[in-house]
Amino acid sequence: MNRSEIDSAWSRFREGYNHFLLETPLWKLPGAALGLPAAEIWLKLEHLQVGGSFKARGMLNRLLANEVPASGVIVASGGNAGIATAAAAKALGVACEVFVPTVSSEAKRARLRELGAQVVVTGAAYAEALEACLARQKQTGALLTHAYDQPEVVAGAGTLAAEIETQGGVPDSVLVSVGGGGLIAGIAAWFEQRSRVVALEPEQAPTLFKARQAGEPVDVAVGGIAADSLGAKRIGAIAWEVTQREVKDALLLSDEAIRAAQLWLWRQMKIAVEPAAALGLAALQSGAYAPRADEKVCLVICGANVDPSTLAAG
Amino acid sequence: MNRSEIDSAWSRFREGYNHFLLETPLWKLPGAALGLPAAEIWLKLEHLQVGGSFKARGMLNRLLANEVPASGVIVASGGNAGIATAAAAKALGVACEVFVPTVSSEAKRARLRELGAQVVVTGAAYAEALEACLARQKQTGALLTHAYDQPEVVAGAGTLAAEIETQGGVPDSVLVSVGGGGLIAGIAAWFEQRSRVVALEPEQAPTLFKARQAGEPVDVAVGGIAADSLGAKRIGAIAWEVTQREVKDALLLSDEAIRAAQLWLWRQMKIAVEPAAALGLAALQSGAYAPRADEKVCLVICGANVDPSTLAAG
Repeated sequence: MNRSEIDSAWSRFREGYNHFLLETPLWKLPGAALGLPAAEIWLKLEHLQVGGSFKARGMLNRLLANEVPASGVIVASGGNAGIATAAAAKALGVACEVFVPTVSSEAKRARLRELGAQVVVTGAAYAEALEACLARQKQTGALLTHAYDQPEVVAGAGTLAAEIETQGGVPDSVLVSVGGGGLIAGIAAWFEQRSRVVALEPEQAPTLFKARQAGEPVDVAVGGIAADSLGAKRIGAIAWEVTQREVKDALLLSDEAIRAAQLWLWRQMKIAVEPAAALGLAALQSGAYAPRADEKVCLVICGANVDPSTLAAG
Repeated sequence: MNRSEIDSAWSRFREGYNHFLLETPLWKLPGAALGLPAAEIWLKLEHLQVGGSFKARGMLNRLLANEVPASGVIVASGGNAGIATAAAAKALGVACEVFVPTVSSEAKRARLRELGAQVVVTGAAYAEALEACLARQKQTGALLTHAYDQPEVVAGAGTLAAEIETQGGVPDSVLVSVGGGGLIAGIAAWFEQRSRVVALEPEQAPTLFKARQAGEPVDVAVGGIAADSLGAKRIGAIAWEVTQREVKDALLLSDEAIRAAQLWLWRQMKIAVEPAAALGLAALQSGAYAPRADEKVCLVICGANVDPSTLAAG
């Protein structure tokens, strides 16, 4: 994965399509406005992206870079990747099948159907839904999208970094949440050490942290507050390669710190997001990441697929 | 009220204070991205302002333009004006008393206390809390802030329009929600016919609409979905004067259209706001306001003091 693949995705979005992906706001604030000891905090409000997360970038690139057969696209996901695939398919007018396990919520299924997807509910856990999805794909020949470990998906995510640079220049550091690692791979591949890209994971979903300990990607037990979107069991192969090359720091955060930051974003700033989007602020507020006084720190606010009632005062 | 008063407020903010008011994002989108028949939709995301609404601008200007006595500031409000006064007082390090009626929610009182305000709960309705507030003000000599009908408050609100122009130029039209009219007065006084400023009110809180019918400000019965923030009983004297001079259109919207737009903003765009902030989108989606195909329409997303559980599906 390198900058030229991201450039290709970026061109595809500009030339090949209009009015689907949004250019999300980059909000520059003085650190003092957030009570943080950094010169500037840049909030990339990517939770306002179509489908409520950055995933739409990767899925759209996957669909635009390949010929989509008449059977359309297919994905196994009950979360942001499924929503993003369905939204991209709808925008391009192609069919979409989404496989979700029986534990998935009815609200998410309804959202997928609203986006025109055929929803197949099967298997007790994600792994079984995936197996059924792959079997179906062999049958129909539909284009498979993967939540984080396909080159087009990572390159699409990397356009987020290209957009930050276009809007505001290169920050000193970028704090990025990691699940399967598609987002950080795209961002780190774009900046190539021009910015310090910091990987953040929940203590209870440490795919990159454990891979570094083991010296290679390994399966980890995942759980905790952000498992819904950062619940990949293993860091993706592309993300492993790129982060080994470009990312020095991989930090862990407690569920308490993540939850506190998520609530702070809503109560103090009226930004309603899922836990996964609060890791950057959690790292700053907990002191896990300590910026220099003159540092310009960019936080990628990556998703808002949250039940808003979980943000209400208790 | 005129541009020079707004210029003064704008200078006061830039010179007199740092890191309290935020420059909120102006998000320009193609109309097609929202499914609307206008060339561009500009979303001024002022619900991200300190205190969750534009009111912080007016209150800060009121406090900066006057000498604040040792007894501090005082206000009667259970809503955005009270929160904004408390936040401005906290930022300037002055005392603050807020009078709220017994019907006000405990959540709002807690928020006010969190901002350092002394909360006085008195009277069954707002009018009685106001009466007690005015009596107390005579006693202490504290600086009184009014939610919408003081020149400094209107001029402060007008800086929102100056900021839009600085960020993105002059839109063809600006759609503004009206309660007491402080916001539209500031915006219309700034643009002075260079943009078409459109007043929007809920059918159940038509202070400007009824004043126009009567030829002068009159008391109206208020209720409905947006009464919490647009529930002024009568258009302010300053707003009446400015809107008579600068605003041609005053449109009414049903609670159903407002609620649908509020839910759409959350579900489709992940912008969580109070009903009052959804009137602009409601006007476009319902057809009450029909833009030209080449029009650049600015919607002022004015507040986010909403219980997020009211946005949940179900």
